[in-house]
Order: sequence, then structure tokens, then C-alpha cells
Amino acid sequence: MTFQISAPGGTLAADLQHRIDNKTKPQGALGRLEPLALQLGLIQQTLTPELRQPHIMVFAGDHGAARAGISAFPQDVTWQMVENFLAGGAAINVFSRQMGLGLTVIDCGVNHEFGPRPGLVNAKLGPGTANYLEQAAMSAEQCDAALARGRELAHALAANGCNVVGFGEMGIGNTASASLLTHCLIGEGSNGGGADLVTVTGRGTGLDDAGLVRKRELLGQALARGGRPTDPRAALAEYGGFEIAVMAGAMLGAAEKRMTLLIDGFIVTSALLVAHAIAPEILGYCVFAHRSKEPGHTAQLKHFGVDPLMELDLRLGEGTGAALAFPLVQAAANFLNEMASFDSANVSEKGN
Amino acid sequence: MTFQISAPGGTLAADLQHRIDNKTKPQGALGRLEPLALQLGLIQQTLTPELRQPHIMVFAGDHGAARAGISAFPQDVTWQMVENFLAGGAAINVFSRQMGLGLTVIDCGVNHEFGPRPGLVNAKLGPGTANYLEQAAMSAEQCDAALARGRELAHALAANGCNVVGFGEMGIGNTASASLLTHCLIGEGSNGGGADLVTVTGRGTGLDDAGLVRKRELLGQALARGGRPTDPRAALAEYGGFEIAVMAGAMLGAAEKRMTLLIDGFIVTSALLVAHAIAPEILGYCVFAHRSKEPGHTAQLKHFGVDPLMELDLRLGEGTGAALAFPLVQAAANFLNEMASFDSANVSEKGN
Repeated sequence: MTFQISAPGGTLAADLQHRIDNKTKPQGALGRLEPLALQLGLIQQTLTPELRQPHIMVFAGDHGAARAGISAFPQDVTWQMVENFLAGGAAINVFSRQMGLGLTVIDCGVNHEFGPRPGLVNAKLGPGTANYLEQAAMSAEQCDAALARGRELAHALAANGCNVVGFGEMGIGNTASASLLTHCLIGEGSNGGGADLVTVTGRGTGLDDAGLVRKRELLGQALARGGRPTDPRAALAEYGGFEIAVMAGAMLGAAEKRMTLLIDGFIVTSALLVAHAIAPEILGYCVFAHRSKEPGHTAQLKHFGVDPLMELDLRLGEGTGAALAFPLVQAAANFLNEMASFDSANVSEKGN
Repeated sequence: MTFQISAPGGTLAADLQHRIDNKTKPQGALGRLEPLALQLGLIQQTLTPELRQPHIMVFAGDHGAARAGISAFPQDVTWQMVENFLAGGAAINVFSRQMGLGLTVIDCGVNHEFGPRPGLVNAKLGPGTANYLEQAAMSAEQCDAALARGRELAHALAANGCNVVGFGEMGIGNTASASLLTHCLIGEGSNGGGADLVTVTGRGTGLDDAGLVRKRELLGQALARGGRPTDPRAALAEYGGFEIAVMAGAMLGAAEKRMTLLIDGFIVTSALLVAHAIAPEILGYCVFAHRSKEPGHTAQLKHFGVDPLMELDLRLGEGTGAALAFPLVQAAANFLNEMASFDSANVSEKGN
């Protein structure tokens, strides 16, 4: 399976910048919103970008390794939180309602049978991944199937008229997977910093000091078993979660459809590491919503050379950071489309 | 005139924190939104704070010193931008519409006769301040009248059911006033840094290097004439703008009514320096929206010991940062009111 992504760009950049610079404000005075407006225009190839039917996709899955002690919460919390999403009581429900975002929850491999449920997409690849302390988390076939399902989901969303999608996740143990993927796909920095395993392994949902030591030991054991694959599909199969794999496919599918991708925190960005290693052109479609409190996120952001819009010390996941950043993305489109120009408003321009 | 402000607080803090901690998320995982929710509860003295009829007040005024070369834009831009506000074409119009915020523009002393106009409040204290290079910007009587008018406006807003107000401003030359006020009311840091005049004098709407040098020279001349009053009313009378003075009064009046105050950038925070020097209890009612690109703002934020919600390199004013931060403040109230608890959602709590 190959993904057909063309980088945003083209000849509109100068016209977009001219339009931005002639709004009734000093040049550059809207700060980060100005390059964001430019990016939206380039993604949509128009001087008047519009965000249509914005949507949050929350990918859920369980991790075989979760029962080995890599998380502060029991594995059952994954399905319990999916129930909470379906009942509308989680943080991502609250923020999606507030921001006017659609919300779809995708069961990519939760260790629980939900049955047919409104608002839940069954994309189950199994009852959770295998325990990567003992064997690869998934087979190469499962990995490819997961990417394909994600792509289909994104294409279906685009077919429904959506052109901006925020990514979120739920899966007890998935910061551990994200740490392993980050370690594999970024590699150690040339100065010894960067993405060494200890640096990119954090407290997740809230491990104490002893728990963090144990998590790092266990992940070291996983690496000793499975090695450090640098091919994105191989790394995903070895250490990934089903939710991370389906999400990576959805990101690639969304970029194929020239959608704007709202990137949440550490786990979502680990899926983007996979997607980016498959098709680097995806980066131009990404808006980085926030910097997570999880330390590995900073290594990922540095790898991409980006500075996210917000820094709110969030470490919840679910796509909450993407949802909270949405009004800023909307504001970038709105000022471009709705503000008067110096000419149209008869405002004098800069004198000196 | 004295202002009656009691600091938010009381006995609700423990109950609010308990409520926050029992939402279905790891403790602290919503980062900055959690203390913000606590603050809203303390301000409103309730476990279920609600933001009612949120509003942006934009205070406009002209500065006698503006014609001396302290700004990159001509003075006429003040009234032209007021016209732009009234026509709905400025950035603050766009963002207020998007966020569902009411917007009122207050003519505190623009050098232009608008006549009666819908959406414009006439609180004119004169056709702009006097030139503080030659004499005090306003009389003590004008200063007191400005504070009183601002207070009345905030009380009227509260009487209409509003309990959260964002502050914005328009006035060519008003970063210069803000620099002088900051220099007077913070004073130089003990280590020689902090609020010395050069540090807190920036490019405003976009002075070039030569313009910035000239602005600093002129402000030095103003200080040589008018001295460095540390009393807030005296500093305001010497170097203030009418828009800054009315805004300071409105801030104090809003805190008297236990409203939540959304603090924008450098000029708005200079009004807060005045208000805070008059009634320090005001600080508990303030939410700091963003860190402006204008360098003096960082000195002000450090003086208050606060870290704003966003850092978007904005330097536009008008209350745009306050409007853009509003969804985060709303999100804090919403998660507190709408999220399920571990109990109510049957989600297992942390295991280790």
C-alpha cells in the first residue's frame, strides 16, 4: 500500500501573504495566527480557506504489555473510558461539544466486546496487541490492515465533507508504545540527547518514581528482545498499539484528501512519526496543537522542527489538546476571510 | 473614591479541588485548566461556575505625545480603527463574533467627533490627552473622572448579567504611555533588570530601529520633565492615556462585582498595574490571556508572578488575546460542570 500525498504549496503563497499583510493590523501583529492562515490557504489551495465539519477521531486499543506494570491504571480503564466517551462524560466530549466538533470513537482493538453502538466504529484488529515483552505486538499483516482501515476511515470522513480532523487516543499502556516508537523512529541524538529511551519514557497517566523506574526497565527488556527497527511499519508491528497503527493510516489518508490535521500530544505524535516516515509530505498538513507534559513529546516536536500553538501542561490524551486548539485554527481562517483591509476600511497605513 | 474589592477565596477551595480531582482523568492531567477552574469557582463562590454574557470592552483614546514621533502610525488611525470596529471589520470583531462575545467600544478621548453611534459609548474626557513631553497628560480631576466612568461602565455591564469581561484598547501612541506607567509602577529591578525604561519600551505597532531609539529618547525626556511618580493616580495623570485610565476604573469596578477579568497584552496590563496599586485584591479576579511580543509585557507579568495561558506572539491589542483565550476559560468551567466523575462513570481509579 502506498500513500499519495503531495506537499501543500504551489504558487499561492505570495498572494496569501499579501492578503494577510493588508488586513487592518500592523504586519505580523497576529503572531502565530498569520503563518497558520498561510498554511490553511496552502493546504486548501485557496485565498479563502474554510474549515468544514471539523471532527475529532478518538482511536482506542489495548496493549498486551499493559498487564506487566507499565501503567498507573488497570487495563479495564480503556473500555471503561470508551463507555465514558459514548455516554458523553469524558473531557473530549465536553471540549468537542464546546468547540462544535464532531466526535467519532474507533475501537481498534479494545479488550472488550461493545456490540453495535451508536458513535462507535468497530475497526477491531484483535482483543488488544500481543505483549511486546514476549513477542511482536502485532503481525505485519495486522499492521498493514490497521493502516488500511485508518485510511478508509479518513477517506469516509472527507467524503462526508469534513476537511479538518483532530486526532486523539485512549489505550492504557500506550505512552509506553509511544516511547518505544519514538526511540526507534527518531533515534538517539548525535549529542547523546534526543530520543534515548529514558528521555522519552515518562509517567504516562501518573506513575510514581518507582513505577517510572519499572516502566523504563520493562521497555529496556522489550528493546533487548525486539531490537530497534527503524522502518516505520516494522517498528509499528514490533511495539505499536492497534490504535496507533489505525491512527497513522488515518493521518495518511487525511493528508491524501488535503485535510488539515490537528496533532494532539505524545501518543498522537508517535503515530505521526510513523506516518511521516512513510510519507514525509504529510508534515505540511499538520497543525501542532500543544506541547504535552509527557517529556517525549518535546523530543518529537524537536524532530519535526515545530513549535506547537499552546503549552498548557496537558497530559490527558483523548484529543483534548487538538480540540482546545481548534478555536485558534478557526481564528486564523476567520481573520483571513473576515477582516477588512486598509483600503476597504479607509485606515491609514504605517507612516515610518 | 475607594474601591471595595474582597479577594476571591474562602472555604470552597478544598471542595473545588476534590471535584476537579474526581473527574475521569488522571489528577492534574488537564494542566493549566485545573487551577483555572479552581479560580473561577473561588471568584464566583460556587462549585459550578458559569460564564454569563461574556463581553469585550475596547477602550479608545488619543495621546498628545503621538504627534511627536512615538508611533509608526499616524494619530488618525485611532479614529479610523474605531470606525473599523463599528463596521465590524477589525480583528477584535472577527474574534468576538467567533467566540460569542459581546463587544462594546468606549470613546474615552479620541481626537474625533463620532456623534451618536450604535455600539459606541461616549465617555470622552477630551480630544486626547495633553502631550506629556510638555505637561501632565491629564489633570487629577480628569484622572478621577476617568476611573469613575470606567467603574460605572463595569457596574452597568454586571447589572446586565455579564460576569466575565475581556479588556482591550486602541490608541495610537499608547504603548509609550504603557511603558512610562510600567517604569513608574514597577520600578527598576534590584538586579538592574526589570522595569527600566529601555527594557519596557518596544516597537509598538512596528517602529524600525531608528524609530525605537527616538521613542526611547522622547520617553526619557518625558521622565526628565515629569519625574517618576509611584502613586498610581499620579502616574496615570502624568503619563496615562484616557483609555488606560477608564480601563483601570472598569477593571476595579468589575472586580468589585466579582467578575472574571480577561487581561490582554501590554497596554491592558499597564492599566492593571494602576488598578492593582489601588486595590491589590484585584489580582485574584484576573486571568492572564497571553504573553505579548511587546517586551514590557514580560516585565509586567513577572511583577505579578503570573504565567499567561497562551504565547502566540500577538502584538495587536484591541483585546484580541483576551478574545482568543476565552475558549480556554470556558473549557475550564465546562470540564468542571460537565465531566463525569470516576464514580458516576464507573471508571476504575489509579492502581499504583
